[in-house]
Amino acid sequence: MTSAFENPDWLEHRVTRIINADDERLAPYRNVRERDLVGREGRFIAEGKVVLNVFLSNPALAVESLLILENRLPGLAGQLKSCRDDVPVYCVSRQTMDAIAGFPMHRGILAVGRRNAPPTVDALIDALPNTALTIVLCGISNHDNMGSIFRNAAAFEASCVLMDETSCDPLYRKSIRVSVGAALKVPFARGGSIEDIVDKLQNRGFEVFALSPSGTTSIYDAAPGPRTALLLGTEGEGLPKSLLQKLQTVTIPMSKSFDSLNVATASGIALSRFSRFSGI
Amino acid sequence: MTSAFENPDWLEHRVTRIINADDERLAPYRNVRERDLVGREGRFIAEGKVVLNVFLSNPALAVESLLILENRLPGLAGQLKSCRDDVPVYCVSRQTMDAIAGFPMHRGILAVGRRNAPPTVDALIDALPNTALTIVLCGISNHDNMGSIFRNAAAFEASCVLMDETSCDPLYRKSIRVSVGAALKVPFARGGSIEDIVDKLQNRGFEVFALSPSGTTSIYDAAPGPRTALLLGTEGEGLPKSLLQKLQTVTIPMSKSFDSLNVATASGIALSRFSRFSGI
Repeated sequence: MTSAFENPDWLEHRVTRIINADDERLAPYRNVRERDLVGREGRFIAEGKVVLNVFLSNPALAVESLLILENRLPGLAGQLKSCRDDVPVYCVSRQTMDAIAGFPMHRGILAVGRRNAPPTVDALIDALPNTALTIVLCGISNHDNMGSIFRNAAAFEASCVLMDETSCDPLYRKSIRVSVGAALKVPFARGGSIEDIVDKLQNRGFEVFALSPSGTTSIYDAAPGPRTALLLGTEGEGLPKSLLQKLQTVTIPMSKSFDSLNVATASGIALSRFSRFSGI
Repeated sequence: MTSAFENPDWLEHRVTRIINADDERLAPYRNVRERDLVGREGRFIAEGKVVLNVFLSNPALAVESLLILENRLPGLAGQLKSCRDDVPVYCVSRQTMDAIAGFPMHRGILAVGRRNAPPTVDALIDALPNTALTIVLCGISNHDNMGSIFRNAAAFEASCVLMDETSCDPLYRKSIRVSVGAALKVPFARGGSIEDIVDKLQNRGFEVFALSPSGTTSIYDAAPGPRTALLLGTEGEGLPKSLLQKLQTVTIPMSKSFDSLNVATASGIALSRFSRFSGI
């Protein structure tokens, strides 16, 4: 346990110690598990040191405040130095932290961030390079899956993630956490129908592969173009039949007696194969 | 909503209707989310129709009882016919079901199963065919990851999953659920140290690939043998250094700036590549 007097002076001066869990300045952090910054206006919650590092390294995102458990302070000196001086850093005891969060908040590091209006699907597609691998999501409404897909997109350097309007927001707390910060790193845009997104990609020269258990070509045989988009739907309903009929469909070859993969796992397998890293 | 009198006579005679959530016969189903059949003696809980189907199709597993929400009965006629006559089928209302489970139990289908003593690691290895792809787990203690790895093992027809003693039991409720039943299908054995398991596999002619971010050969370049074992450790600590030094290490090639995959996703990518289905 590190007590206050062991911290260097600048660190003690930098932080604002708060004892009362009901302090109004802590409102954005209250019961973070139950609510998710309802009416968020571009705000999000980042948890843990790894996610905080990804957050701080993205100049498009602004830090509104930090909430740090007192014994985590010494390990965050570098991160705090990189924050602007006018960003409040609240420092609390374990007891206060758990009372604010509403559950034992083991990580002890929370941050409220804000981002400007995200790009539109059109603008993001227009900004893509000539060689690009993008992920396109249809109806992905589970925050775990969304976060896992972003983690895979970052690991295999997908250019961006595009989502139709029925997919969930990648900046929900749980999605950011599961993504290990990738949701704060990989560019994304959400909106419109999946048909519109596919049309726009095809007009910009993208080869759109629809990943489906009923796909006709193995991902190991399909030949990606310089601009490739990988389209993924939900595990239950899958992609709309009309789309499957007009696109090249690809499949992950697997057992006939247990043809069931999690959608995020499927994204990882297909991204690994189509990424420039695979060399195949 | 289906009421009792719409069910065929045989179905009504087959089930035992229970109104009182405190009925002693329902004890194994009580608060299933909080406890997990502590002191289970080979018992497990299966949830949902898909998992129940996998469960019933495995002759090595015995059904002890079923607990079915009344409006799910008509859709389970086939499954109930395949159960022995002396297996109790308890049928309850939505209100009673939620009171028993301790939370809204949407699936409405629960079963308590039992399996005989699992095979030892030695016995399971001895029973493997000449062409085999096995998964070997070291220190996997997260039930979500365990379940996801089993799901992938089933999808790519791994011969079995072997686990050291520090890995968790795949028959925990959550693990079975996440595996979509694969934990009740894919043979597994757990016990001993990871070094012992690796020694036994090598003595039986297995090529053991240790999957690691620091691995020297890309999974897309590594050449699997007729008997291949894929060794996976935790995301944090990874595999013991002594093992990495004596085994062929393989890696999933990915971004240098975000070299982080979930261990279950990594298992899916490597299984897909090394399975007979990939054709590479």
